[in-house]
Amino acid sequence: MDDLLENIIRALDALRARSPLVHCLTNEVVKQFTANVLLAAGAAPAMVEHAEEAGEFASVADALLVNLGTLSEVQMQAILNAVPVAVKAGKPWVLDPVAVGAVGVRTRFAYELLEQRPTIIRGNASEILALTGASGRGRGVDSLAESADAVEAAQLLATDTGSVVFVTGATDYIVTDSSAVAVHNGDPMLTRITGSGCALGALTAAFIGVCDFPVVAATAASLMFSVAGELAAAGSPGPGTFAVRLLDQLYSLDGAVLKVRGRLQTIV
Amino acid sequence: MDDLLENIIRALDALRARSPLVHCLTNEVVKQFTANVLLAAGAAPAMVEHAEEAGEFASVADALLVNLGTLSEVQMQAILNAVPVAVKAGKPWVLDPVAVGAVGVRTRFAYELLEQRPTIIRGNASEILALTGASGRGRGVDSLAESADAVEAAQLLATDTGSVVFVTGATDYIVTDSSAVAVHNGDPMLTRITGSGCALGALTAAFIGVCDFPVVAATAASLMFSVAGELAAAGSPGPGTFAVRLLDQLYSLDGAVLKVRGRLQTIV
Amino acid sequence: MDDLLENIIRALDALRARSPLVHCLTNEVVKQFTANVLLAAGAAPAMVEHAEEAGEFASVADALLVNLGTLSEVQMQAILNAVPVAVKAGKPWVLDPVAVGAVGVRTRFAYELLEQRPTIIRGNASEILALTGASGRGRGVDSLAESADAVEAAQLLATDTGSVVFVTGATDYIVTDSSAVAVHNGDPMLTRITGSGCALGALTAAFIGVCDFPVVAATAASLMFSVAGELAAAGSPGPGTFAVRLLDQLYSLDGAVLKVRGRLQTIV
Repeated sequence: MDDLLENIIRALDALRARSPLVHCLTNEVVKQFTANVLLAAGAAPAMVEHAEEAGEFASVADALLVNLGTLSEVQMQAILNAVPVAVKAGKPWVLDPVAVGAVGVRTRFAYELLEQRPTIIRGNASEILALTGASGRGRGVDSLAESADAVEAAQLLATDTGSVVFVTGATDYIVTDSSAVAVHNGDPMLTRITGSGCALGALTAAFIGVCDFPVVAATAASLMFSVAGELAAAGSPGPGTFAVRLLDQLYSLDGAVLKVRGRLQTIV
Repeated sequence: MDDLLENIIRALDALRARSPLVHCLTNEVVKQFTANVLLAAGAAPAMVEHAEEAGEFASVADALLVNLGTLSEVQMQAILNAVPVAVKAGKPWVLDPVAVGAVGVRTRFAYELLEQRPTIIRGNASEILALTGASGRGRGVDSLAESADAVEAAQLLATDTGSVVFVTGATDYIVTDSSAVAVHNGDPMLTRITGSGCALGALTAAFIGVCDFPVVAATAASLMFSVAGELAAAGSPGPGTFAVRLLDQLYSLDGAVLKVRGRLQTIV
Repeated sequence: MDDLLENIIRALDALRARSPLVHCLTNEVVKQFTANVLLAAGAAPAMVEHAEEAGEFASVADALLVNLGTLSEVQMQAILNAVPVAVKAGKPWVLDPVAVGAVGVRTRFAYELLEQRPTIIRGNASEILALTGASGRGRGVDSLAESADAVEAAQLLATDTGSVVFVTGATDYIVTDSSAVAVHNGDPMLTRITGSGCALGALTAAFIGVCDFPVVAATAASLMFSVAGELAAAGSPGPGTFAVRLLDQLYSLDGAVLKVRGRLQTIV
């Protein structure tokens, strides 16, 4: 576990030193917040969505994020152009299957994307359950299931796809076919601002852009975001102040704070 | 009037207890802020805009918001798919005819939507005047008319459509064919941040998702938002701080504060 | 130089007195922040993107902003409809060629737009270099070149197009075929929030909507934004707080502050 934490801190140092360019094909509600989270943390966001440009740009960026939150026909074409280019160029990519299971188009599309083997899949319990064919019990973008309920499904999904599966919730789980790590940090206030999960997906893409190990990248993103959330929530009178402080914390957070506050646990 | 206030407080309690899912087909400028206002107040936003998904989702959500601020052909199709589904499923819906009268496409489209009988129509004076065929004297999204100037037009519109008409401005008016309530709360700082009117429309949809009486729902949204605005403005050095505090206030506001600060008046 | 500063202060007074309506055809990441910057400064934003409406609206607004950050086929059509209407109506317009040089579609499109002779072109060094056919050394939306490196290219571009060229970076340069002014204000924190450059382009459009002299308008926008940035950065623990204070400063800043803090320099 100490090894994992050391690797996370090295990944954070690399993120700040190299400022990875993250190509975000993400939803319309969270683009500004996602960009601000990446900039605060030390990465560089780029939202290039023209189908032709998205294909061109995917080989330039250090990592690609695909988030299905407000899928449109135009965006689907951009995604279909960008993903194979990223894969062919050996660039890592993160799939965030927002609200999969709740509506049909994106569910079918997510299955299609799984064949391109995402480096990391990030979703809440409902979404991960839906991707394995279980009833997701989702309600729009919210999960009605607990993240722990999806660990088994995550392991199946990891086995099927070769992806690392990152289940987020009150506790986050980073799951492979043969291992699982839990991150017991965070604060409920993260559910009272829009885009916290989506921004965490983007931060995951930033880490995998500078770190060769998907488990380390996803755990680093989880830990950095949830510890920043804890620190931001302390004394915040509401979600307005909280969101502002979250960006401040992502900016100033360092390895020493992660060592003191991080509550990592190996499950499997 | 005491009855109305009691009903508003009950609606606020219901909003927080049931966290209505609000399907927002809204404009691109305000999606993040709208989602954050709904989350702060206690509701759950979902912005599903793919035409096929929007139709599917409209029967799942508790209420539908249709805001014409940045209308596109793609969004028009999503709206045309979603509204009849919501109506057929007995779900309430709110029409926010942003900048109607100022440009042609949305004006014709708004007239078309009126035939589907929105539960509540929220607009500034210019927009409400434009919907009744009067010269709206709008300038883009701004109203150059005072809200009081539109109360008569609102009454005509309410008679024609059966909708409750919610005219917003320095004073808000909630108008039916036979009644009108004025809300004398608010602060001019609300005009110095983008999307305050649009977010108020979304909050109205949230209330009508948990409350069977459109007058109560619209008045509750008006009162909650304008009182939060007053409290947020006190001591804010500018609109940046104001917007942050507005979200904090929407999160913490309770019935007791509404009782103390609410300035409701029956007009008709 | 004192004359220029006096003209800038007059332009700021005019902006607040007349609240110019700025038609923004801008990118999806920064729409909310751009609107909030314009509102805080005293202008009125409108984001009308439906191709038919955009053409109609361009003659109503006081100035037009065209920002290529997240270009789509739909937006390209809106731009192609709006620009000639604005030009024909004698309305000033600002071109912000985001990430030109980094990807192909927007680069060709930007060249096409140059033929419509923007009143002002605002870009970072990479973008301005790319517009003159030099290698821009851009990386997505970031410039890897210093703004000073692009002053010569800016002068060529100004000569070719008749536009005022506004190169932004740690130092901003406002360049014509025969003159150049440097603005030595600002703070690195401006690079840690998304959309600061894009919002500055919009503010430039607001100033040119109330001021007949493009050099004055661009320098006024540069000075107002960078001085507000300096004041906002002082004591900010991170980019979250900084962005909030930036809006507060844009709201309260006056000519007296610009006189005390402004560091203008005539280069040519």
